[in-house]
Amino acid sequence: MEELSWESSVTYSINAIYLLFSAYLVFVMQLGFAMLCAGSVRAKNAMNIMLTNVVDAVVGSLSYFLFGFAFAFGEGPNENPFIGTSYFALKDIPTTSYDYSFFLYQWAFAIAVAGITSGSIAERTQFSAYLIFSFFLSGFVYPIVDHWVWSSSGWLRSRSSSSLLFGSGAIDFAGSGVVHLVGGIAGLWGSIIEGPRVGRFDAFGKPVAMRGHNATLVVLGTLLLWFGWFGFNPGSFNKILIPYPNTTNQGNWTAIGRTAVTTTLAGSTSGLVTLFGRRLLVGHWDALDVCNGVLGGFVAITSGCSVVEPWAAIVCGFFAACVLVGLNILALKLKLDDPLEAAQLHGGCGAWGLIFTGLFAKEEFVIQTYDAGRIGAHRSYGLLLGGGWGLIGAQVVELLVILGWVSITMGPLFYLLHWLRILRISADEEVAGLDISSHGGYAYNTHEEESGPRFYGDYMRMQINS
Amino acid sequence: MEELSWESSVTYSINAIYLLFSAYLVFVMQLGFAMLCAGSVRAKNAMNIMLTNVVDAVVGSLSYFLFGFAFAFGEGPNENPFIGTSYFALKDIPTTSYDYSFFLYQWAFAIAVAGITSGSIAERTQFSAYLIFSFFLSGFVYPIVDHWVWSSSGWLRSRSSSSLLFGSGAIDFAGSGVVHLVGGIAGLWGSIIEGPRVGRFDAFGKPVAMRGHNATLVVLGTLLLWFGWFGFNPGSFNKILIPYPNTTNQGNWTAIGRTAVTTTLAGSTSGLVTLFGRRLLVGHWDALDVCNGVLGGFVAITSGCSVVEPWAAIVCGFFAACVLVGLNILALKLKLDDPLEAAQLHGGCGAWGLIFTGLFAKEEFVIQTYDAGRIGAHRSYGLLLGGGWGLIGAQVVELLVILGWVSITMGPLFYLLHWLRILRISADEEVAGLDISSHGGYAYNTHEEESGPRFYGDYMRMQINS
Amino acid sequence: MEELSWESSVTYSINAIYLLFSAYLVFVMQLGFAMLCAGSVRAKNAMNIMLTNVVDAVVGSLSYFLFGFAFAFGEGPNENPFIGTSYFALKDIPTTSYDYSFFLYQWAFAIAVAGITSGSIAERTQFSAYLIFSFFLSGFVYPIVDHWVWSSSGWLRSRSSSSLLFGSGAIDFAGSGVVHLVGGIAGLWGSIIEGPRVGRFDAFGKPVAMRGHNATLVVLGTLLLWFGWFGFNPGSFNKILIPYPNTTNQGNWTAIGRTAVTTTLAGSTSGLVTLFGRRLLVGHWDALDVCNGVLGGFVAITSGCSVVEPWAAIVCGFFAACVLVGLNILALKLKLDDPLEAAQLHGGCGAWGLIFTGLFAKEEFVIQTYDAGRIGAHRSYGLLLGGGWGLIGAQVVELLVILGWVSITMGPLFYLLHWLRILRISADEEVAGLDISSHGGYAYNTHEEESGPRFYGDYMRMQINS
Repeated sequence: MEELSWESSVTYSINAIYLLFSAYLVFVMQLGFAMLCAGSVRAKNAMNIMLTNVVDAVVGSLSYFLFGFAFAFGEGPNENPFIGTSYFALKDIPTTSYDYSFFLYQWAFAIAVAGITSGSIAERTQFSAYLIFSFFLSGFVYPIVDHWVWSSSGWLRSRSSSSLLFGSGAIDFAGSGVVHLVGGIAGLWGSIIEGPRVGRFDAFGKPVAMRGHNATLVVLGTLLLWFGWFGFNPGSFNKILIPYPNTTNQGNWTAIGRTAVTTTLAGSTSGLVTLFGRRLLVGHWDALDVCNGVLGGFVAITSGCSVVEPWAAIVCGFFAACVLVGLNILALKLKLDDPLEAAQLHGGCGAWGLIFTGLFAKEEFVIQTYDAGRIGAHRSYGLLLGGGWGLIGAQVVELLVILGWVSITMGPLFYLLHWLRILRISADEEVAGLDISSHGGYAYNTHEEESGPRFYGDYMRMQINS
Repeated sequence: MEELSWESSVTYSINAIYLLFSAYLVFVMQLGFAMLCAGSVRAKNAMNIMLTNVVDAVVGSLSYFLFGFAFAFGEGPNENPFIGTSYFALKDIPTTSYDYSFFLYQWAFAIAVAGITSGSIAERTQFSAYLIFSFFLSGFVYPIVDHWVWSSSGWLRSRSSSSLLFGSGAIDFAGSGVVHLVGGIAGLWGSIIEGPRVGRFDAFGKPVAMRGHNATLVVLGTLLLWFGWFGFNPGSFNKILIPYPNTTNQGNWTAIGRTAVTTTLAGSTSGLVTLFGRRLLVGHWDALDVCNGVLGGFVAITSGCSVVEPWAAIVCGFFAACVLVGLNILALKLKLDDPLEAAQLHGGCGAWGLIFTGLFAKEEFVIQTYDAGRIGAHRSYGLLLGGGWGLIGAQVVELLVILGWVSITMGPLFYLLHWLRILRISADEEVAGLDISSHGGYAYNTHEEESGPRFYGDYMRMQINS
Repeated sequence: MEELSWESSVTYSINAIYLLFSAYLVFVMQLGFAMLCAGSVRAKNAMNIMLTNVVDAVVGSLSYFLFGFAFAFGEGPNENPFIGTSYFALKDIPTTSYDYSFFLYQWAFAIAVAGITSGSIAERTQFSAYLIFSFFLSGFVYPIVDHWVWSSSGWLRSRSSSSLLFGSGAIDFAGSGVVHLVGGIAGLWGSIIEGPRVGRFDAFGKPVAMRGHNATLVVLGTLLLWFGWFGFNPGSFNKILIPYPNTTNQGNWTAIGRTAVTTTLAGSTSGLVTLFGRRLLVGHWDALDVCNGVLGGFVAITSGCSVVEPWAAIVCGFFAACVLVGLNILALKLKLDDPLEAAQLHGGCGAWGLIFTGLFAKEEFVIQTYDAGRIGAHRSYGLLLGGGWGLIGAQVVELLVILGWVSITMGPLFYLLHWLRILRISADEEVAGLDISSHGGYAYNTHEEESGPRFYGDYMRMQINS
């Protein structure tokens, strides 16, 4: 057996530090989602939505360990472009390609997906239905898409250089499509099938504002997500110690820094445009608009963050804000009730992100990201920069295929749960709030409430007596 | 004097980055404890318990700098297995074994211990008593145990290979015993000697629920602790750049990633089992149960995280949940009032963690962790894997010795404070809440309260007048 | 073109990891400020102040990208000691000296400055005025000071060794002056020109307590700032892989660890002294005092953190607490109303930090920090350690120059806004609160408020009707 050289040890150590701490940052996004969601719902449902976020993490840990990772990254004799078939329960890990740190990084991504969807169906979903769809989404639907785009044998991949779709492959670097569009489309089906919350639209179909109970939590969640996105986007390089030939000081470390910059600029631009845009539309400066705007910009840049110039990130953010504001108006018109705007934000801006990459990806950066800057390499790149139709074509294919795949899996699942009458809670429970009906009490207890109702039974008795 | 080679500089840099950022993550646990504790007590005591958490950090910084670190890691001519005697106020640091980053990492551990105990005696303890026990616990009681298990000369150590207890030494990798059991047992004595909070048990001895005031803070604290545990467990390797001989790609970086995975799986399993177990027992899905379950799993795996297979971590988490749920039922029966369940969680699951490691530690991983994977090394390992009685014996000795040491130091201290009548606040103050009686006002001010009572004197006057 | 060697790649990777993750930590300070500020104001203004914090980040991202970074670090043919003139919109980045990661690190600093100032003028400032001063401060006033002290051609720099001011240059390692004093002085002018909040001083000029609405957020913010400061101070080394000659195991990694330790000790000492000092003055133990004390200690040590012994950090923290407590008493006497104590804390302790460094800097550490430990190097150092008048002179010059520069730029700007009547909101709006008058609703919605006023118009109508 060959011995491990000092040089190899250094390389493994440096890359492991980079990937592990990036994974920890991505985990912080789970915390960010929990706070964002909690603040965006009414107080009576805060406990419920936080429970769903924590449960995403703990259920996701087990399902991704047992089979999710295998579906996504399994290799070996049965290798195929559609689904992985090895590494169940981390059998044979570590291999020469995958160490535990890679699993941890991918795990943090997997648990994020169900968190996105939980926002769309907040405040009206039975907890047992949540357990079922969360398990199915993060354990099966998501890993399959993951395999298509990010595994070394996926049919949409762009990491290796032979037999790529349209000679290009889809560029979805950190997952505008794989993560956000998947979560957003699942949420869209959930919120359509469940229908709006009680009282969301009045007798004339006019929307009634249902403000979240705590803006501080929304800001806290948003900034935690920003912090975590530094692990999500720049971290998706996985390895930092990869020099680019024909340069004197550049390598993945340069591209990683640039990715952090494009991410920051897209989110900031989108936040600012949303702030001013909404100021024009509704007449006041709204902190929550900036928050959602920032997140929309992040979602959109997630696909192309590593392959575009900083100025293009500003363009990306500008249109992400337009997409978000526009889809929110459309959702009201269509009477779609998505309490966290998750379908609009993660779905809409995620879709825009895939297209944006097809328009603005720069060849030099594509070669850096996917061929380690190999001299003489050629790649399809952004249509608007003269890179031809290969990349934009693959991007559109990824978009449509995700739309289709999530729709034919999650749509029927939600419908089945609906048909079995285990999807939505009763109107009575909804008015009382999920916390008191399903979770043993409210999230908040002031002095007076200490002797208040602790169980739904007590609550109902009080209603009857009063 | 020998010059420092480029290779050495690289090694020092890589390991310093790893240890420093791990230390920063462990510090986040202080923030996690503060939020968890604040949310778990009633609003009228929120300011008090957060103050104790911040004070742990600032008092602990000074005491650990002045003498705690010296007691724990002091070496030199007076070196002995029981207490360290050099490096007071960081004199002679950096040495060839200890740099400032090592001190910082250990400091972050030290300030966590008193935070655990503060949960057990919450809502009824005088702040001056808190200052005294916190100083004594983190400056003296904890560093001594630290020295026994983690210093290079401690009598329970397993880092070096000669003259280990039972030829094995105790494996308490990141401190199920050293940190959590110590904090939990101290809390147990505190809560026994103080007795339950006013109104915790009714005239018939039936427990009365005293819910924390803010579940959002509990979830925030739990997820911050999860984030911080990635520094606590994987970080305890201290060095990442240690290759294992006879492999082509493995080293501490592999074991570190595996440790993050075992930690995640144990916590997740325990959280899930607690969720379903409590659902069966009390009839509703409780977010706070999952939170405590997750933490119990983390506490239990902390001892063996680096030396067990991922599947064993799931076993660890399963029984950690049983221990936690069981001890909580027992505590109610015994009328023990521990507002944060700290004795049950950190004490009970910490003890289980020590035993678990004695049962499931894998020889290959023990040799990786404690002998850098040395070829031909042999170690005692898990009893159930055929590793003999050496390790499990040492684990039981550590458990009993910690029980004894903390009991003969903290028990008398709490009793002395009790006897001097400076341990517990008066019943009047307890009913009014610590914030108004000792800390100048409540943690929360709504519009109406702006002109409300600011000092306890005002409060008493109002009581009299009304 | 020269090829990039493996050694260079390793060096770039290690330093990039260090700088990037430090930048992410500094970003967390933005989150810390948002929570600290939100908790310290009354509930009716919480949304407003969080909006300002988020807007600091998004506006700052764009302005620092477009020209702020250029003013601060621009080099080239027009290089001069007063203002940078290249790298607008990151043109020509990466260069041999600056990679994207350096920009990101500096960006995180820039957005912090306006956040400091926003505390001083909280609860009474028009949002459009905020947009203007924030843009001007972080885009122009701050970057200029940045250039003087931290760029390679600045007239106050101490990084290179020739033609330094007084043969020494000013040592402001992580910015007690450049960041905190700048933000604090700007805040001082803002709060003087705006005047106190309505009701802050009664008819007899006696101060009326206006407590923040949520102490939990204050503690959360403070501990997040502590976490972030580990990026701010130790991170300011920028590179970790720099060995010191004539040692066997020391390099920047040693100095970085020591910097984290001095930071921790100064903050802890200051927190503890403030706790006991205020206990003597007001008669109760106040968690918020410890929080502000800790922050004051951090601000003060920020200048000298890398060049002083740990014991000196304790001295620094002790006097920082005295400065803070003293200036708070003075502010009350002078009827200065600074809701976050930002002028006292960041201004006062920042100024003390500059002086402290001039008194206690140790020659060996100065040479490590600014000359990579070069053998035979000599530097001016702390006056009290026998280092002469060069350093303390430069420190005083930096202090005075910042006082002057910020005063002649921000003073007139605030006065102009005041004169144009766009600085302060009306007394009616102030009593109602900024959230309802400018931001479409309160930060918090309890069950009852769900059907409450959403816009200021509604609010006014209700006032009239009732």
